[in-house]
Amino acid sequence: MIQPVRWADDAVEYIDQRHLPHETRVVRAQTVDELEAAIQTLAVRGAPAIGVFGAYAVALLRRNISDDAAFEAAVQRISTARPTAINLSWAVDRVLSAHDMLAEANTIHDEQRKVDQLIAQSALPLFSGASRILTHCNTGPLATAGEGTALGTIIAAAARRKLSVYVSETRPLLQGARLTMYELREAGVDATLIVDSAAAVTMQQKKIDLVIVGADRIARNGDTANKIGTYGLAIAAAHHGIPFYVAAPRSSFDLSLESGAVIPIEERGSNEVRELNGAAIAEAGTAIYNPAFDVTPARLVTAFITEYGILQPPYAESIPDLANRPALAVLA
Amino acid sequence: MIQPVRWADDAVEYIDQRHLPHETRVVRAQTVDELEAAIQTLAVRGAPAIGVFGAYAVALLRRNISDDAAFEAAVQRISTARPTAINLSWAVDRVLSAHDMLAEANTIHDEQRKVDQLIAQSALPLFSGASRILTHCNTGPLATAGEGTALGTIIAAAARRKLSVYVSETRPLLQGARLTMYELREAGVDATLIVDSAAAVTMQQKKIDLVIVGADRIARNGDTANKIGTYGLAIAAAHHGIPFYVAAPRSSFDLSLESGAVIPIEERGSNEVRELNGAAIAEAGTAIYNPAFDVTPARLVTAFITEYGILQPPYAESIPDLANRPALAVLA
Repeated sequence: MIQPVRWADDAVEYIDQRHLPHETRVVRAQTVDELEAAIQTLAVRGAPAIGVFGAYAVALLRRNISDDAAFEAAVQRISTARPTAINLSWAVDRVLSAHDMLAEANTIHDEQRKVDQLIAQSALPLFSGASRILTHCNTGPLATAGEGTALGTIIAAAARRKLSVYVSETRPLLQGARLTMYELREAGVDATLIVDSAAAVTMQQKKIDLVIVGADRIARNGDTANKIGTYGLAIAAAHHGIPFYVAAPRSSFDLSLESGAVIPIEERGSNEVRELNGAAIAEAGTAIYNPAFDVTPARLVTAFITEYGILQPPYAESIPDLANRPALAVLA
Repeated sequence: MIQPVRWADDAVEYIDQRHLPHETRVVRAQTVDELEAAIQTLAVRGAPAIGVFGAYAVALLRRNISDDAAFEAAVQRISTARPTAINLSWAVDRVLSAHDMLAEANTIHDEQRKVDQLIAQSALPLFSGASRILTHCNTGPLATAGEGTALGTIIAAAARRKLSVYVSETRPLLQGARLTMYELREAGVDATLIVDSAAAVTMQQKKIDLVIVGADRIARNGDTANKIGTYGLAIAAAHHGIPFYVAAPRSSFDLSLESGAVIPIEERGSNEVRELNGAAIAEAGTAIYNPAFDVTPARLVTAFITEYGILQPPYAESIPDLANRPALAVLA
């Protein structure tokens, strides 16, 4: 299995995902500048994977920075390198409060692998009558540093029965086209790429059985921030009576937030839209609105798939109840 | 105003729109191969513009090909160069049945300009309370060889009151990013580019007042074939309670078709999705589903805007009634 993030004793090694699928470029990050840039540029991306990366980053920074104030400033930069995914600050806080920071980072990484396996197990019954699946963006091993969330469920289900997977390319950065199609090919799963705007007609014509996506942050009421385009998919799925599932670990739920209205949504630079592979698409100076995420209201989510099983509505009960679940070590 | 198609006595001249906005390359087509290729490659595109181009093409072919069987075979290639837009075969048939083919082609072109002006006039009342508009693909002068359909209404309305226009980039060929943004800049209209999958959140956050698009073929019941992504926009607009208008001339209505289920939908090559500006996005051999159009069910269309005014539901009455309208010369 591909390993997007790895502790390398004197560095955090990662695959620069911006060059996939054409090139697997492994990079070593050592300084806070390098660590922060890896997250900000989306060289490392995927909510759980940036959590794992952030955990290793803090352990490395503690080893290299003896001055406490400087260390805290560096940690703050890592923790806030991207605003929407909650996993990043969750992992950083967890490492900070541990006695042995590297051991805790390793535990977070080990847990992510286990969590992903449990999410895939939780999802299996949902695939029992479903063979045509639509997914968005990338939620596989590259996105979690484990087995994947939504894409992990698809790969696990495809090992048991034949699936046809439709993948939306996920403009502007094309994680669906570049990463998900690559991971599905590696896994030997039948997959077809579509442009994002073809998702609705694909639901209509190909009789999609279910849509499954990941999440960057889920509020207490079930409102879900995820990659731009998720909201439109959820609306279209509801319009066609297709179940719409969100697969995400406990660490993606932010129980402190009442609703999606208060999830911070990252707006990224216009060049992500205006240029592709360095070539301009639109004219210089074009005004561009580039929200990296959108928030899907809880009412459009059929269920959440977690390592603790499937969370059904009413989410106002099932999601806060996550706080009462045993820690994973107990569960395992 | 930009002139995408022009009669040049011994050729049909056109702007190769694949190079816009970076380069305005004017090309001369003389042979049936050149004329057919201009349509098939989308160098000339937009349902009304390919109608005008097809009309001139037939007039030129009649001038150059004396053998009737060879002429008929050439005309057949032009008429079927793209399957979805009805304007192409409509214009070809009209020129074929005329005594003076070039005069008829010129009339079709003149009428298109007049039709576009009338469509813009028809639409003005719809913009009276609307300042935030969302549109898709390109429906301006480049698409009609006149003043534009949907984009023509926007440009005309923007001359009277300040509008903010959101333009979806329109993958795979990016007509929104490349052509509509260019035409709106030329017209001095405030415009913002978004990726296609950001349309739903833009409706939610920017409080879009109306969505307006063009059409390639409209069935007798109001089902509307248009650029891929239109259907998803219509679903999202309905979800947000936003009016969804289709601006199209009489020549885009195919009264012979009972419903959209029988509109032929062109599937185009996978390279349109897999490559951009010659650079690969996904791996070679990637399976791709690339429908160039989708069909929006009539129930999602708030009204049609035509040169004869606004067609309201029930479309089963208002659309077939187009057959009873006076020809444009009488109307003018």
